[in-house]
Amino acid sequence: MAVGLGPLPTLHPVPGFELGIASAGIKRPGRKDVVVMRCAEGSSVAGVFTLNAFCAAPVILAKQRVQGAVRYLLTNTGNANAGTGEPGLAAAERTCARLAEITGVEAGAVLPFSTGVIGEPLPVEKIEGALQAALDDLSVDNWAAAATGIMTTDTLPKGASRQFVLDGVTVTVTGISKGAGMIRPNMATMLGYIATDAAVAPGVLQDLIRDGANKSFNRITIDGDTSTNDCCMLIATGQAALPAVTEAKGPLFEALKKAVFEVCMDVAQAIVRDGEGATKFVTVEVNGGGNHQECLDVGYTVAHSPLIKTALFASDPNWGRILAAVGRAGVPELDVSKIDVFLGDVCIASKGARASTYTEEQGSLVMAQEEITIRIELGRGDCSETIWTTDLSHEYVKINAEYRT
Amino acid sequence: MAVGLGPLPTLHPVPGFELGIASAGIKRPGRKDVVVMRCAEGSSVAGVFTLNAFCAAPVILAKQRVQGAVRYLLTNTGNANAGTGEPGLAAAERTCARLAEITGVEAGAVLPFSTGVIGEPLPVEKIEGALQAALDDLSVDNWAAAATGIMTTDTLPKGASRQFVLDGVTVTVTGISKGAGMIRPNMATMLGYIATDAAVAPGVLQDLIRDGANKSFNRITIDGDTSTNDCCMLIATGQAALPAVTEAKGPLFEALKKAVFEVCMDVAQAIVRDGEGATKFVTVEVNGGGNHQECLDVGYTVAHSPLIKTALFASDPNWGRILAAVGRAGVPELDVSKIDVFLGDVCIASKGARASTYTEEQGSLVMAQEEITIRIELGRGDCSETIWTTDLSHEYVKINAEYRT
Repeated sequence: MAVGLGPLPTLHPVPGFELGIASAGIKRPGRKDVVVMRCAEGSSVAGVFTLNAFCAAPVILAKQRVQGAVRYLLTNTGNANAGTGEPGLAAAERTCARLAEITGVEAGAVLPFSTGVIGEPLPVEKIEGALQAALDDLSVDNWAAAATGIMTTDTLPKGASRQFVLDGVTVTVTGISKGAGMIRPNMATMLGYIATDAAVAPGVLQDLIRDGANKSFNRITIDGDTSTNDCCMLIATGQAALPAVTEAKGPLFEALKKAVFEVCMDVAQAIVRDGEGATKFVTVEVNGGGNHQECLDVGYTVAHSPLIKTALFASDPNWGRILAAVGRAGVPELDVSKIDVFLGDVCIASKGARASTYTEEQGSLVMAQEEITIRIELGRGDCSETIWTTDLSHEYVKINAEYRT
Repeated sequence: MAVGLGPLPTLHPVPGFELGIASAGIKRPGRKDVVVMRCAEGSSVAGVFTLNAFCAAPVILAKQRVQGAVRYLLTNTGNANAGTGEPGLAAAERTCARLAEITGVEAGAVLPFSTGVIGEPLPVEKIEGALQAALDDLSVDNWAAAATGIMTTDTLPKGASRQFVLDGVTVTVTGISKGAGMIRPNMATMLGYIATDAAVAPGVLQDLIRDGANKSFNRITIDGDTSTNDCCMLIATGQAALPAVTEAKGPLFEALKKAVFEVCMDVAQAIVRDGEGATKFVTVEVNGGGNHQECLDVGYTVAHSPLIKTALFASDPNWGRILAAVGRAGVPELDVSKIDVFLGDVCIASKGARASTYTEEQGSLVMAQEEITIRIELGRGDCSETIWTTDLSHEYVKINAEYRT
């Protein structure tokens, strides 16, 4: 049911970043469920992590260890190692320690990532048993296989790649992601890995992924359920023959930032396009806000409203539901007489009431499309925010009601 | 599909409060869609109204006029007169003015209430044409007919009644409500009318309905979509031969408060039981909070989570989803190691992880029931809050996707 999501584009290899895939049989025998990524010595690694207070054991560990020198990222699917308490933390440490032992790096140089069922003990032996095969498989050309290897109930692998040339040197940014909502049916959830061969100082890299995620991963929602396991990592291997980026300025920084943001956006939007039961890809654009928070409040209220989402599923231009959502978003002293709402290019509400030029036919034409933009003009200021979401279909209920049966 | 909602109980007449029902043919010919309620001269009237910034024209008018002397409440279904701007306000004023003209009261003594499709012009002539028939029908014995007359897509009428005797005098509190969610499919929404024959000073009456609604109407949610038209009115006709309640104390006040709160709770919970597509009636109880707001934040996050609601629909004791929702509720410095979660009497999570005593069989037994309590112990303080909600079923999507088709 993915909306406008085709086969993977070409994913250019990133010198200094290798990926290896293996099968540990965590949930199903033979399924590729373990991915090892190796960063060249001297790589900078940065990341953003879930804000859920119940963050999973691997998230706790990865957050701590990303502060130090990182050499390996170890990902398993089929088990989230979340809600598992102290034993879960020990299990994550054990798998990392085993990988460190085989490869001869410090235990703290391995970061764990898990996605899958919450609350089941991590099958440590199974994962350990697959590590050598994953290491044997390491290659810079394995991005597409890794994009498939980190999938859980995703219907399609998700990846994006950009290259630019500066001073005759080609720089690559390639990324992959998994997830079909902020949380999956009993699954947890969004993972993203982006690598570049540029050399970037850790502080600059951290700002890059924070800002990039803020405009992409942190602006998508399927169902509003933030997961316990969300992580997005950005790795800079420094293999490109260019000076290191040590400040947030200059031509290399600007070109890199553009490429990183574009890759973030592509793989984040791919998650929405593959959203559970999605039949529409919906852009909610809020303009004219007095500040960014009120734009986000309005955008998320619209994006999460089950009534708007079911109307989108039905291709029903039910503009009253949009007005009602804007009105309950909690914006202080909202003057409804200044609000305009557009469906695509069609003005459906003007000055807080149905637009005199609007006809149901115009609305229906827009709603019949697979990709729909809802634009809300608040008339209060100059701030804007954009959020991407899906509709709410029978299939969503089916997937989430029947997942464990 | 209503859960545990039977036929209307006996609705005792309230001396001094008459109800008349008529058919204006607003949406369908012959359907009872206009209800007139008459309050005896000298009645006190209080109300609580939607906080949606896009509040409907009748809400704007009723909020103003409830400050003065009220004689009539005029309700129509089939059209919400919301998102209709200045013409909508004029239309609401016209219908009230016409009723005032026929009955010889001040125009400001008539309060309008509308529920139905948002954004369509109010059919003023049709409503005006039905007023005389509604007036001819006025009777203290018409509560059950009025409960049906204010229904939109409700599957059952909703009402409750209490009586108590003080100093040999019987005092009655009777109420009705409509709605099957905080907002209906393209419909708007919750209306409640409660009357007593006690004499109550306006300030005390206002506090009574505010506090009563806070513990009942303001604690229910189907889909989180607060409507543009929500109102709940409390009328005290003063016909009972007892002194007026002028302070929030004393035996009459206490007995009345108990009766009003019970009626509020019954008719509010009836809305949840008749929730769109509901197959479960779910109580979310949050205890041990540091303050009431954090209890509400946790309760609503659980009650609104599409993943929890679909698990409830599937009778799947998917406790990981409950933990994940608690974790993302935004409670500052939440110590997950202090959190216990119960499904009915079964402890499913203890100290932030799966309870060692828990078995899937125990959870499945609770989830198989129609009425389910999710109890969350935060271990942070002494505050508690309770919220009532439903599951999210295929039927919900069907009702809301196909409403206008």
